[in-house]
Amino acid sequence: MGQLVRRPFDDAEYRERLRETQLRMGERGLDVLLLTDPANVYYLSGYDAYSFYTPQILIVTAESAQPVGVWREQDYRCATETTWLDDENVLLYTDDYVDAERHPMEFVADLLRDRGDAGTTVGVEMDAYYLSARAYRALHRALPEATLRDATGLVNGVRLVKSDREVDYHRHAGKIAERAMRVGVEAIDVGVRQSEAAGAVYDALLSGTAETGGDYPAIVPLMPSGRGTGSPHLTWTDEAYEAGEPVILELAGVVNRYHSPLARTMFLGEPPAEAREAAAVIVEGLEAALDAVEPGVTCEAVERAWRERIEGTRVEKESRIGYSTGIGYPPTWIERTANIRPGDETVLEENMVFHLIPGVWFDDYGIEISESFRVTGDGAETFADFPRELIVK
Amino acid sequence: MGQLVRRPFDDAEYRERLRETQLRMGERGLDVLLLTDPANVYYLSGYDAYSFYTPQILIVTAESAQPVGVWREQDYRCATETTWLDDENVLLYTDDYVDAERHPMEFVADLLRDRGDAGTTVGVEMDAYYLSARAYRALHRALPEATLRDATGLVNGVRLVKSDREVDYHRHAGKIAERAMRVGVEAIDVGVRQSEAAGAVYDALLSGTAETGGDYPAIVPLMPSGRGTGSPHLTWTDEAYEAGEPVILELAGVVNRYHSPLARTMFLGEPPAEAREAAAVIVEGLEAALDAVEPGVTCEAVERAWRERIEGTRVEKESRIGYSTGIGYPPTWIERTANIRPGDETVLEENMVFHLIPGVWFDDYGIEISESFRVTGDGAETFADFPRELIVK
Repeated sequence: MGQLVRRPFDDAEYRERLRETQLRMGERGLDVLLLTDPANVYYLSGYDAYSFYTPQILIVTAESAQPVGVWREQDYRCATETTWLDDENVLLYTDDYVDAERHPMEFVADLLRDRGDAGTTVGVEMDAYYLSARAYRALHRALPEATLRDATGLVNGVRLVKSDREVDYHRHAGKIAERAMRVGVEAIDVGVRQSEAAGAVYDALLSGTAETGGDYPAIVPLMPSGRGTGSPHLTWTDEAYEAGEPVILELAGVVNRYHSPLARTMFLGEPPAEAREAAAVIVEGLEAALDAVEPGVTCEAVERAWRERIEGTRVEKESRIGYSTGIGYPPTWIERTANIRPGDETVLEENMVFHLIPGVWFDDYGIEISESFRVTGDGAETFADFPRELIVK
Repeated sequence: MGQLVRRPFDDAEYRERLRETQLRMGERGLDVLLLTDPANVYYLSGYDAYSFYTPQILIVTAESAQPVGVWREQDYRCATETTWLDDENVLLYTDDYVDAERHPMEFVADLLRDRGDAGTTVGVEMDAYYLSARAYRALHRALPEATLRDATGLVNGVRLVKSDREVDYHRHAGKIAERAMRVGVEAIDVGVRQSEAAGAVYDALLSGTAETGGDYPAIVPLMPSGRGTGSPHLTWTDEAYEAGEPVILELAGVVNRYHSPLARTMFLGEPPAEAREAAAVIVEGLEAALDAVEPGVTCEAVERAWRERIEGTRVEKESRIGYSTGIGYPPTWIERTANIRPGDETVLEENMVFHLIPGVWFDDYGIEISESFRVTGDGAETFADFPRELIVK
């Protein structure tokens, strides 16, 4: 009765990821690495379930052939169904560790002590989501003889350059984003309740395409309207759209947790002339940045191409215009590695994937027109095919 | 152009929440309280945007008439649109604190120092989501003269008993859950791709009812099928449902961030006799627990009523059978206060809200049949009206 979950990668790919992680651990002098970021746990183990509200910790040691995962007892089958780990590497804490006096990190500390790893140098993702201050303190107290070092971003760095299979998932996700954007633009109209349009967008994101169903996005579709378009992270409300309003739609297609985000801005009626002008400038800047993309170029050089193109216009932008993306779990699809902003000297390599989103917010409205792309051998491959312009309806 | 976001509570209710929080701070000897859990930030400020992937900190001091919030610069308008805070209490850090060497907690430390609060006793939500170990360390280093104390759960405790308005949102959310469950049961069928059924469920959750549109749930609809029903936190896949399979559907209707979860289990074909028997036992146990609910009774007594009813059957349950719920942001709608499990001596009061979910997982399948309810003056008021039984299709 029932089938195994189909795994998105074969064991060889997981082994390669593990090897690269162990290499970087060696460079940083780490004997043990404790991962808590669900995206990093997924990347190295395949573990995929909406269970990260209780601690789950993946343990990588310098020489091991597989990571060891620690999950809550009731998530045992999630682990055996979705990961490439042998049964002996799936370890479980009981429910008396959940929202209780005991912390699962004490379980991990006991485990490291039993294995003779108590006195080693242990990397911890100090700034990862789902590694609370309490979790860190519990580890530190239960394992005082260990040297704890910050290893935030170590595995994120391994994730930065995608394999061909990962790129393939991004491509499918881009097609889903394209379709959902079409459905969204269709659904959003004067008099329509915003929450209904959001429902239609979600339906399209998950129904996916004929080839591929969609996975849930790490960030819900962001759909600010009216003056709210100046607030990029507002979600929908219960109100109906009004004539003349601007509406931003930022969403991501997702396949096997790989995100291809896409944003567009529409006006429900004739936009002010200055909004048309600003949108044209933003598209020019976006395309200048895309044109600047190729292996060997730095992230800040891509940002510079944007900035030089918009100079002298009323479009201004203080914050980053893009970031690397890939695997995402709530609260974000941002990879937290390379950012397209001044000072980021990350050198582009083939198969890095970015979301280029130069959102610009004025006093009364905002405009977002974005693309997700892969760095190719000599340029950029965008994942969605949707008109790059202000949409007027 | 555009309207203010409609605020779900008036200022008087926020003031009452603040007063109760300050009272509890006093009992614990806290001069300052730093909140990072988005649910707690929302509860005391009204701030509602999908921006919690960068740090946002609400500062409550013993005597202040409003909290002070610290957000990322580009979220300024999210704060002014959604909170009851005066402009002077909305403070912003620039983008060079985002995924960078500097941490927003250093900004908070500077602020406390400027206000003369550096040497005080500061409560920190050590085990909250979105308070990373690095954030805590940055605060500790930048404010060495402060006494930092763990204040995890302080505001969660204030949230435990709902106001009549909050209950009203739970009721509307329950109606949405009921409708989405109906849509889900309709959509799930042999040969249907799981992701398509998930799309239909999401559409129903957000489209809501004639009176109320739906907000996004903190946990995506959990829809394990086949052997996966033994893994409660699996989401959907790309596969089609198969004849004879069990399917669990656990979802929550959400209004103004208030969650009313609901779970049911269906079989696509004739279930094994033992599954029918187990479901009947679970429903009996669930109803025994509901019957035990009234003000003055403890959480563990409610669990005992369940356990005594199922004794002597093959249904066993190690983990908690329920938890308080209310406001939720990813990754959870669990309030992390009272749990319906042995050892939890929380005394029920009128207007506490729980999700009672005695999920039971066997080797080949699992069964979940749940209810969300409010403690009334003399019993329990459930929020959804959906047949409490194994669904056979």
